[in-house]
Formats: sequence, C-alpha cells, structure tokens
Amino acid sequence: MQTLEKTHPKLQELKTRLAEVNDIESAASLLYWDQATYMPPGGAAARGRQIATLRHIAHTKFTNPEIGQLLEDLRDYQAECDYNSDEASLIRIARHDYDRSVKIPPDFTARFSQHSAECYEAWAKARPENNFKAIAPFLEKTLEFSREMANYFPGYDHIADPLIDESDYGMNAQSVRVLFAQLRQQLVPIVAAISSQPLADASCLHQYFPESEQLAFSLKVIQKLGYDFNRGRQDKTLHPFMTKFSTGDVRITTRVRDNDLNEGLFSTIHETGHALYEQGIAQKFEASPLAGGTSSGIHESQSRLWENLVGRSRNFWQFFYPQLQAAFPNQFQQVPLETFYRAINKVERSLIRTDADEVTYNLHVMIRFDLELALLEDKLAVKDLPAAWNERYNSDLGIVPKNDTNGVLQDVHWYGGMVGGMFQGYTLGNLMSAQFFEAALKAHADIPSQIEQGNFNLLHDWLKQNIYQHGRKYTAAELIEQATGKPLSIDPFISYIKQKFGQLYVL
Amino acid sequence: MQTLEKTHPKLQELKTRLAEVNDIESAASLLYWDQATYMPPGGAAARGRQIATLRHIAHTKFTNPEIGQLLEDLRDYQAECDYNSDEASLIRIARHDYDRSVKIPPDFTARFSQHSAECYEAWAKARPENNFKAIAPFLEKTLEFSREMANYFPGYDHIADPLIDESDYGMNAQSVRVLFAQLRQQLVPIVAAISSQPLADASCLHQYFPESEQLAFSLKVIQKLGYDFNRGRQDKTLHPFMTKFSTGDVRITTRVRDNDLNEGLFSTIHETGHALYEQGIAQKFEASPLAGGTSSGIHESQSRLWENLVGRSRNFWQFFYPQLQAAFPNQFQQVPLETFYRAINKVERSLIRTDADEVTYNLHVMIRFDLELALLEDKLAVKDLPAAWNERYNSDLGIVPKNDTNGVLQDVHWYGGMVGGMFQGYTLGNLMSAQFFEAALKAHADIPSQIEQGNFNLLHDWLKQNIYQHGRKYTAAELIEQATGKPLSIDPFISYIKQKFGQLYVL
Repeated sequence: MQTLEKTHPKLQELKTRLAEVNDIESAASLLYWDQATYMPPGGAAARGRQIATLRHIAHTKFTNPEIGQLLEDLRDYQAECDYNSDEASLIRIARHDYDRSVKIPPDFTARFSQHSAECYEAWAKARPENNFKAIAPFLEKTLEFSREMANYFPGYDHIADPLIDESDYGMNAQSVRVLFAQLRQQLVPIVAAISSQPLADASCLHQYFPESEQLAFSLKVIQKLGYDFNRGRQDKTLHPFMTKFSTGDVRITTRVRDNDLNEGLFSTIHETGHALYEQGIAQKFEASPLAGGTSSGIHESQSRLWENLVGRSRNFWQFFYPQLQAAFPNQFQQVPLETFYRAINKVERSLIRTDADEVTYNLHVMIRFDLELALLEDKLAVKDLPAAWNERYNSDLGIVPKNDTNGVLQDVHWYGGMVGGMFQGYTLGNLMSAQFFEAALKAHADIPSQIEQGNFNLLHDWLKQNIYQHGRKYTAAELIEQATGKPLSIDPFISYIKQKFGQLYVL
Repeated sequence: MQTLEKTHPKLQELKTRLAEVNDIESAASLLYWDQATYMPPGGAAARGRQIATLRHIAHTKFTNPEIGQLLEDLRDYQAECDYNSDEASLIRIARHDYDRSVKIPPDFTARFSQHSAECYEAWAKARPENNFKAIAPFLEKTLEFSREMANYFPGYDHIADPLIDESDYGMNAQSVRVLFAQLRQQLVPIVAAISSQPLADASCLHQYFPESEQLAFSLKVIQKLGYDFNRGRQDKTLHPFMTKFSTGDVRITTRVRDNDLNEGLFSTIHETGHALYEQGIAQKFEASPLAGGTSSGIHESQSRLWENLVGRSRNFWQFFYPQLQAAFPNQFQQVPLETFYRAINKVERSLIRTDADEVTYNLHVMIRFDLELALLEDKLAVKDLPAAWNERYNSDLGIVPKNDTNGVLQDVHWYGGMVGGMFQGYTLGNLMSAQFFEAALKAHADIPSQIEQGNFNLLHDWLKQNIYQHGRKYTAAELIEQATGKPLSIDPFISYIKQKFGQLYVL
C-alpha cells in the first residue's frame, strides 16, 4: 500500500493474488447489478450461470493452498509490524477470510448456490400466492444447509454462532441475545405508550408524486449529503441495494412509488448511507480485502444513521422542506413543516419490517432472530413456523398478519440465504448508528446547526475519519471502542428514541 | 447440444470447459459494455484492470494443455461424425481457436493489452489536437506488436496473412488484393461519373431532431425489422457497437446528433444488423465457440445489408416515410419521399469513412488496407504515413484532408488494435451483403414488395435459415457457397450499385 518499495516480496505476491480474486468478485457484482437494473429477460438463464462461474473461480483461486502458504510465510513479518499498520491488517484480515473459506468445501458452495437460486424462485412464486406449504420443503433444505455450514466450524457454543460471526464478526448468539433482551425491555413500554395515543396523520406523503420529480429531488438531496456522482450513480430496480465495483465506482439503486413519498426518498438516503461508507474507504486499500465494510452491523449503522438520525430529523427538514415544497408545490404548499415531520416519523405497530418506523423496527428484527435460533436449535419445526410467527407478532406488536404473504413470507432472507445470521445486523446497526451519532455530536456540538443549514461535511468528515477510511482494518468492536470510547450499548439508541419521540408523544 | 445423452464423455468435458471460458469472456464483455454506457468516471482505472484480469484468466483456461489433450482424444470421434454435425463442428472450431491461441504467449497478450490501452489514450488526445507526431511512437510500437503477432504464425506468404486470417478466416493478403483490384476498377469510373453531376440536396436531414424523438422512432423501426427486445436493449454510447453476453442477451448501442438524422438512425439499423445475426444463432450453441459470427466480413455483411440494402432502399421508405413524417411533421411535411430518398443516398467524395456513402465507402477501406500492407512490408515508414494517406485520398477520391484529425487519425483501429487485418472486413462485408441479398431475392422474389408493406419476415427468415442459425459452424467461404451457390464475387455488389445509383445519376 503506501510503502510499496519496502513491501515484503511475499506480501506483494499476496496482494497481487488477492487483487485478482477481488477483480473476479467485482465482475460478479457487476453481473448482478446489471441483472437487477438493465438486463433483458432473455439474459436470465445465462446470467445465473455466469455469476456462478465467476464466484466459483474466485473461491477456487482464493482457497488455493499457495495463498495459505504465503500467509504462513508472512507470520513473522506480520508480528514485526504494528497491529494498526496496513500491512499487518491486510495479512490479518486475509488470514481470517482464508481460514474461513478453506473450511467450506467448494461443492457445498456450488450445492448451496443451486439450492438458494431455486428456493428464491419458489419464494417469488409462493409469496404472492400466500403459499407457505409450497416453500416449506425448500426452507427445510435451507435449514439443513445452514446447519451443515455451521458444522464446518466446530467448537461453537450455539449452532448459530458461526453464521452470526460470518456477517457480524465477534458477535454470537449469546452476546446478541443479551443486547436484544435489554433492548426489548426498554422498547416495549415505549411502544405501548405511543400506541395508546392517536396515530399521526401521514396523508401528506400519500399524494401523487411523479416518479421523475421524486428522482430529481432525491438526487439533489444525496449530492448534498456528500454522495460523489463521479464515483457512483443511481439506477432503478425492484429491491434497492448498494453495490461496489471499486473504490471509484460505488452505485446505489432505488425504487419509487408514485403514491408514497416515503418509499423512494428514504430508501435512496438509506442506500446512500451504505455508499458513503464504501466511497469513504481509503483509496490505498483498492482491490484488497480491506476495501469493504467491516460487518453487516456497521454497514447498516451508516445506512440507518443517514436515513433516520439525519434524514428523519427536524434539522434536516428545516433545510430541505422549502426545497421539497418548491419541487411539489401542489402537494406541500398547505402542509406545515411540523405536519410533514410528524408524518415521516409516524409510529405504528405494523406487519412489514421494511416499512416499520424507528421505534417498532427492532421488534420485527428480534422476532426473526429468535425464530431463526429456534429453528436451528430444532425447537421449532418449519411447518410450525407460520403459527410461531403470528403468535410472536401478536405478543410483541399486538397484531396478527391476515396471511403469510404479509407474515412469514415477507422477507427474502431465509429464502435466498441461510437461516441464521441474516437479521441481527439490522438491529445492531440501529444501536451503533445512535452510538456513533452521539460520539460525533460530542466531538462537534454544532453538527445539528450545520445540518440545519444544509451542511453535512462536519458529520461526514467525522464518519470518514473514525469509520469509513478504515474499511475492514478494524472489527466492529474495535471501531466502536475507538470511535465512541465505549463498547456497544443500547443506551445511546434508547436515549435517542426517548428524546426524539418524547417530543412527538407523551412517553 | 441436441444429443446430450449420446454425447462422448470427453466432448461433454470439453463443452463444460469451453462454457466456463465463454462465461468469463461474456463477463468481460459486460464490463466493457458498462464502461461504454453507464460507468461513472471514477471507475475507469479499476475497470481496465478488471477486464484485463478476466481476459487473462479466460486465455489461461482456454490454452490449458488439458483442453489440447481433450481435442486430441476427440480426433477419432470427430472423424466418425458428419462434417456438418454440431459435434464435429464444435470440435473443429474449438481446435482452430485452440491451435491459434496456444501459439500466442500469454505475456504477449498482456504486453499488447497494456500498450493498446496506452495507445488508445494517446490517440484520444492526439486526434483532436491534430498531433500525429505525438502518436507516431505508439504506432511504431503497434506495428512491432503486429509483426510479432504475425511471426507467431510462421509459414505465411505475406506478413499480413495471419492478421487477416484472424478476423476473416480463409482470406489472405493476396486473395483480398485480387478482389479489391477488381472492385476498384469497377468503382472508380462510377465515382467519377457521379462526381461530375450535381450533388444531391441532403438539407432535409440536417434540421433539428430532438434526441428522444429520434430514439423513439428508431426503436420502432428496429422492432419491425425483427430485433427482439426480450433478448436485447439499446443504450447510448460514444462509439456505437453491438455486444453479446449470451444468445438471450444481445445488445446494441447508439449515438444521436440532434442536427443530423443520418447518424442515429442508420447507425442503429447498422448495429441491429449485427444483432439480428447474433440473436439468430441457434440456442443449442449457447456458451460454446459456435455461438458467434463466423468472420468479420460476414458480420459486417449483415450490418450493411440491413443498413443499406434494406434501410436505404426505396421500398423501405415507402413504408416508413409516412411514419417519419408523422414523427417529425415540421421537418418533413413539405419534403417529398423522393427528395428524402435522394438525401439518404447522396454520393459525395468525402474525407470520413464512417460518413461515406455506399458508392465511395469501399475506396476509403481500400486506402487503409493498402497502407496497412505497406507499413507491415516496411515499404512505408510510420513518419511518412500522413503524407501517404493524403496522397492516396488525392489520387483515389480527389480530395485532401486539411489536417490529420480528418485524415490519418480518424479511425481508432490502428490506435486500439493491430496494424493489419483491421479493415478488409468492411469491404468484404459490403460485397457479401449484395451477394446474400441477391440470393434471398432469387429465393423470394416478393421480398421487396413485402418490405414495402413493412414486413421483413421473409428476408429475416431466409437470413436466419441460411446464415444466422449456423453461428461459427461454417467458414465465410462455406456459408457463401451454401447460401448463394457461388464463391464470393464483386459482381452482385457492382450490379446492385449500378442499378440503384443508375436510377439516381447518369452512369
């Protein structure tokens, strides 16, 4: 990286090999992006095969024993380097990934990819048909795959641990359970208090908003937030996501509903949060394993920080609301800022996680997390999952889905990925977002007043400095400790919720 | 292919390996397409590296001696199969490609890729600056690379032969020279006769045509021609091209000038011709070496057939002109069809190949072909190229470029590819297009009247049947012989030109 001339020759060779793997994976990501944005329908069959081919080649090249040997040969060199040095970090993270990858047999990856594609297809059909029975056998198989995966990492305390560790390194079933139990204890009375009060009026968000004007407005917003269009772009898709092909090319996708302003605008800001993280990673890490987000929780903390703590704040709209009114005069001229602010922060016990507000959102996640563990522990059978789901929605949120389409079938995660490790990151991200934001405010008390003037640099710079630039150099726990001076805790989130929603409701 | 159950196991293994190579190459093509359409500027550096990585992997996998061994092991099986069978054809074409690829050292490919990227960049700068001197050292190096490439195929008669053979298999410097000499002899007096007559008035094409309306109109046209949007799409780019990621995903790109109707419309039809060829290849060849156009000449024959013999015909516009008038009423209401027809077929001795009409176009190509050979033969030094270029434009077309920007620097070919083998395909394509069209008309005399009614099926079906479906199964020479009953000849082209332009000018 910086010190190329002094680099150990084996480190240089390692970097070259890792860059090759990175290039192949980036190509696979572009194939996926294209599939989700512009690909004509006729391309689907070949595209699936092409992505699988590239992923297989990347996996084969990465798990080549010669890479293992290089990592072995570099042990002494790594020990001589400072833990925080780019060199030691690269070797450390590469070894972590390598050790993990070689434990998973290539044929497992191929079998699981095949199954997951079939399962996704079956889900896409079963969901609108409200047909859980049709998908159940696929889910059984997913569960078997998930257990098989976990068992490639023996020595765990809980069978979900290796799956959680994969996306949120350093966490496990027990540590997540402890946090979630504390969180639930605090959240449930808040939700109960708010639910006993009248619902906010969000009708101003459900007028007619032409797609092109929504897109134009949200592009203005995210440019102001600091999204660099020289190193990114936004396109339309069915299920919005952020993706990266290099540090110079970090793209977001969005969808727009012309009768719901929430959908397009906030999902755009959400994906922008992910993108600001990736665009902020130090250029010197390009094409190395350090050039990525460090955990699913940290990644989500950035999408949620920008979407909620910034994008649903009063300061933010003090700046942007006049612009929104100018963009949609017929829709908003008669709507006071306060009405709009209450609308975008409406709290409501609802069925769909992705539409949930900041207060109830984590209850949705915790239901899924507990059910995942129960399935993996074999305490819950797949056939009993819909009933268990509905029971938990009744007990936790006081509402029961009328059908599985809006219940257990709503999220793609179990039907396109593993059972286990798929959901905790969302709530960890919410907790982290509040903890980071609190630390940023502590460092720069005038962040809110800057935001009110449409200036996001102070916040953005703090995040770049403390989180983004490091990429995967530090673990989530290390980053949180360094950036906030404390380990992860629910306190900043709860105090944020109490403060913000205490102004909107009697708590 | 069709007979999967009976397939020789080694053939099956060969197919699997070739499909992997094909997938990697298709991914590289998508990376290129994205670079030329949607990629943000920040992605450029990594993208070049990523494409090079994929190409290198594809080359390494394809030249793996195990593929050579499989091809050896399949010799007897191939001999047992009918020459025309899919099996024998696959082995034959794969062996041809393999034998060629293994002769080129991987380090040559890497060195040349690197040089060609640098040379392209230098050209993109030198061309607008009219600075041939700046690009000359790069061109010298390109010439060295071209000779080095040729010398990996010893035993040639002319040093350009291996380069010509690469894009137009079966042709060589001598056979092209013979054809071109005949063609020039016929063309020169025709051009002279037309040039002595008044220029056609093409001012109707140079009004203001809003981009979006041009795009909408040309999409309607190419849909009617048979371009399948379920298996393709059109996007904007700087230099239009056709590309394919699978038989189900064949895309075209276009550019539009709002003061020139020619540009967007005819380049769209041109690329559509390439795309109809690729979309028409039998699905059973998917991901195999047979799934492609068989030569650069045959490919160009299809783009030129649809662009010129169809798209610039009177029958075609008898159908489409009322629609064009409806799309652009202000521009065309007062313009009779005959005026428009003469405008799109205006013959003029001009400087730029890509803007040239059907009559003079081949003179441009032949100048380049002769200069390529002279450079390779060392009869012409790079420093003397601009003077040689201008001299030939003067003698062949009676005009001299005022600067190198519109002269020797106009085409990318020598500055992004090799010197040699880059140009003959254009004229071969023109000759073939007329020969194929003549054969199609002989088989179906009512093709013109069908076209006049906006029905292109009869022609399209004949082309699919006789050319497209076969992919690379047959060589250009075999295809021409099978489809037209004759070897390639200049006669159909000359008689087409004489007939068409004999109606517009006194010849």
